[in-house]
Amino acid sequence: MKNSYLKSNNSNSGYFYKTFYFKQKVDHFGFNNNDEFEQRYLVYGGFRPPQGGGPVFFYTGNEGDITWFCNNTGFMWELAKELKAMVIFGEHRYYGQSLPYGNQSFKDPTKLQYLTSEQALADFAVFIDYLRSEWYPGQKVPVIAFGGSYGGMLSAWFRMKYPHSVQGALAASAPIWQFTDLVDCGAFLKTVTNTFKHHNPTCAENIRNSWMIINKAATTETGRKTITDTFKLCKPLQSIEDVGTFKAWLQETWVDLAMVDYPYPSNFLEPLPAWPIKEVCSYLSKPLTRDLSLLYLVYEAVNMYYNYTGKASCLDINQEATQALGTMGWDYQACTEMVMPTCSNGKKDMFEPVEWDFDDYAKGCQKQWSVTPRPMWPVIQYGGKNISTASNIIFSNGLLDPWSSGGVTKSLSASLTAIIIPDGAHHLDLRSTNKNDPKDVTQARQKEKEIITQWIKDFYK
Amino acid sequence: MKNSYLKSNNSNSGYFYKTFYFKQKVDHFGFNNNDEFEQRYLVYGGFRPPQGGGPVFFYTGNEGDITWFCNNTGFMWELAKELKAMVIFGEHRYYGQSLPYGNQSFKDPTKLQYLTSEQALADFAVFIDYLRSEWYPGQKVPVIAFGGSYGGMLSAWFRMKYPHSVQGALAASAPIWQFTDLVDCGAFLKTVTNTFKHHNPTCAENIRNSWMIINKAATTETGRKTITDTFKLCKPLQSIEDVGTFKAWLQETWVDLAMVDYPYPSNFLEPLPAWPIKEVCSYLSKPLTRDLSLLYLVYEAVNMYYNYTGKASCLDINQEATQALGTMGWDYQACTEMVMPTCSNGKKDMFEPVEWDFDDYAKGCQKQWSVTPRPMWPVIQYGGKNISTASNIIFSNGLLDPWSSGGVTKSLSASLTAIIIPDGAHHLDLRSTNKNDPKDVTQARQKEKEIITQWIKDFYK
Repeated sequence: MKNSYLKSNNSNSGYFYKTFYFKQKVDHFGFNNNDEFEQRYLVYGGFRPPQGGGPVFFYTGNEGDITWFCNNTGFMWELAKELKAMVIFGEHRYYGQSLPYGNQSFKDPTKLQYLTSEQALADFAVFIDYLRSEWYPGQKVPVIAFGGSYGGMLSAWFRMKYPHSVQGALAASAPIWQFTDLVDCGAFLKTVTNTFKHHNPTCAENIRNSWMIINKAATTETGRKTITDTFKLCKPLQSIEDVGTFKAWLQETWVDLAMVDYPYPSNFLEPLPAWPIKEVCSYLSKPLTRDLSLLYLVYEAVNMYYNYTGKASCLDINQEATQALGTMGWDYQACTEMVMPTCSNGKKDMFEPVEWDFDDYAKGCQKQWSVTPRPMWPVIQYGGKNISTASNIIFSNGLLDPWSSGGVTKSLSASLTAIIIPDGAHHLDLRSTNKNDPKDVTQARQKEKEIITQWIKDFYK
Repeated sequence: MKNSYLKSNNSNSGYFYKTFYFKQKVDHFGFNNNDEFEQRYLVYGGFRPPQGGGPVFFYTGNEGDITWFCNNTGFMWELAKELKAMVIFGEHRYYGQSLPYGNQSFKDPTKLQYLTSEQALADFAVFIDYLRSEWYPGQKVPVIAFGGSYGGMLSAWFRMKYPHSVQGALAASAPIWQFTDLVDCGAFLKTVTNTFKHHNPTCAENIRNSWMIINKAATTETGRKTITDTFKLCKPLQSIEDVGTFKAWLQETWVDLAMVDYPYPSNFLEPLPAWPIKEVCSYLSKPLTRDLSLLYLVYEAVNMYYNYTGKASCLDINQEATQALGTMGWDYQACTEMVMPTCSNGKKDMFEPVEWDFDDYAKGCQKQWSVTPRPMWPVIQYGGKNISTASNIIFSNGLLDPWSSGGVTKSLSASLTAIIIPDGAHHLDLRSTNKNDPKDVTQARQKEKEIITQWIKDFYK
């Protein structure tokens, strides 16, 4: 197979990695389409022992530009240095530069149909087969999969479906059970709420109350202008639909804050201070108020999230949290395989009561992408809760992280190990070591290191 | 999902089973094609305990009409009776009545592209999911996969890829290693030769000599007429190409004979006496001859195979061994995923020396089906020889069977058990008990029963 090395100047933690493109079949599961595309890989071999060999750490890329994951997965680099591993980050098809049909990839359903988790796993399997035969001919090479979030789901599924390809997987904050009938649809937003309560119970109460105040204001033009002015919105709210977008954006903001509630300043989705929820809630910690003044407090909180650097002159409710995430691709995936039901009841959580309505959801998918979601397919394909025959997977979850509600938080067998990080947000353990790390994430990484070291030893036996 | 029961009068060993059709997506791995088709299932529930429950025995259908497999898998029925199991035979898409696009299914590459082992396994997984939730709601149901030959490969792969779907698999005569770089391409025809030698070493020598005599005769028109007349061929050999077809047909005949070398009269591919190779070789057991008279002996041998009932007035070299096998479908599969390299050298085997030429093979596939085979894909997809993390699979192989050369003939772990049947041909163990069964197949079935019983016990634990 033809492939090419391209030197580049990109670096992570001072290590200069190579960017590499690998020819992949667009369709692994059929023989009618022989199109190929170039999949991007980031490769760093500087930790390998001088005599060659050693393990390979392979990041199963998720829904975004792979360089972004590369720069936010410092633990993998640290552990690779310690265990003398080759470091490889594989980009997920349809994200970053790995577009099967270039800028036409999202143009029509025919070109988009190859965006599935199964095709992505097959890409990784084909690449690793190539890696073993071409880069390590005649050698025994243990490969360990790493991934966070959807990337963590992929790394777990990769070990389940291709156990000959990787000897084990660290699936960090991987909500592999966030599917229909596997967990309560309300658990996700309840966890967001708990994370806010954890820092400040009054804050969660104030957020819960804010929806009512917004709804009341939204009924009149004057009220909508008040919201627009209070939140310094870039575009005024002109209709009830605009208000819907505004509320969805607010909800998304609270969710994202729970995901990135890291113990030190970070810039994962947005530039933020340490424990951003604590910071945000400092505006919302005053005694309960049910009048319009609450709106200004919510604005101050939200402004901290979107405008920590103070550069924004207005807030854009259509803005994505980060450009690095491929929201088009993920929208499509959420409309096909990755249907993750959420709901809220306003009692156990701080959100407006919204039931999970699959039919309505499916209608939206049909409208946007001309596809009908198959919500049970990932359960049938990946086994739902019946995965105890799998082996060598670490499921790590931070309890501040909303996605922990769909994660594996209890060990399922001696080799399917759950690691809980009470003070951890979204895959905190995958991030670089930091002097402000809570003790529990340090312990989690230590345990992960021990288990991975054992997998490597077992492999050579 | 809509589905329908259709009562039918079909029976196996006196048990009347129901024929059932189940709606399947044509494409499980993409969301652009929402076509559905009706997949056929044969269901017999008469062995189930009166109070309901009990295990399910599920045959993962292979390349043919499912009723044919149903009628040639008596052991599954016998064991189901003993263990009070529901019996289900699932038809493989693109075979029998399970044609995704009716009589258009083979008409163009676009309609044919969904004929893959991955799609077939997904069909079975979707059906079993339906079975559990609709037929056994709220119950724990152990499902055991059964399969012979390619069906055995599917049952093994099914347990590997969908271990949550089936608790174990009996993979009889399943050549899961008959792929590129996994076994010697010469092993298959060497095993055919050994089976002939086993009965009669002179017979194998005579067959080896026959090619030279055919080749010599084939150079002239008179010689070709001699062959035509001697073999009572339905159509005369008119060209060198015809002679090629004739020799391929002869080779196929010897291969098929080794496959069906059963210890009692049978009618799997053709109606045959007990130990048909012994019978065939009775014509070829005379001292070596290198002249044309050998041709007549070969004719007598072949005539025994194709014309045991004495009804055929001529021999048809284009005739398939059985109408029940879907040769069109298998040709396509062999041209896409199921590339099984074979070669011969005329020394370790009794065939003409032929090297394995992938490029030539691929050219033929391009010409016939407009597809390019991907010989390494099944190895990447199903793990090749690195399958030791799988569990609960019995690989049984008869040593008379040429396909044993690509099978798992040594246990790979405590739960990946190889069972050898020295006097067994192609999945003899799956056939009904017979008073002429060799002791080793009786022992094999006993062991299979013990292991399967244990899987069921373990499941309920």
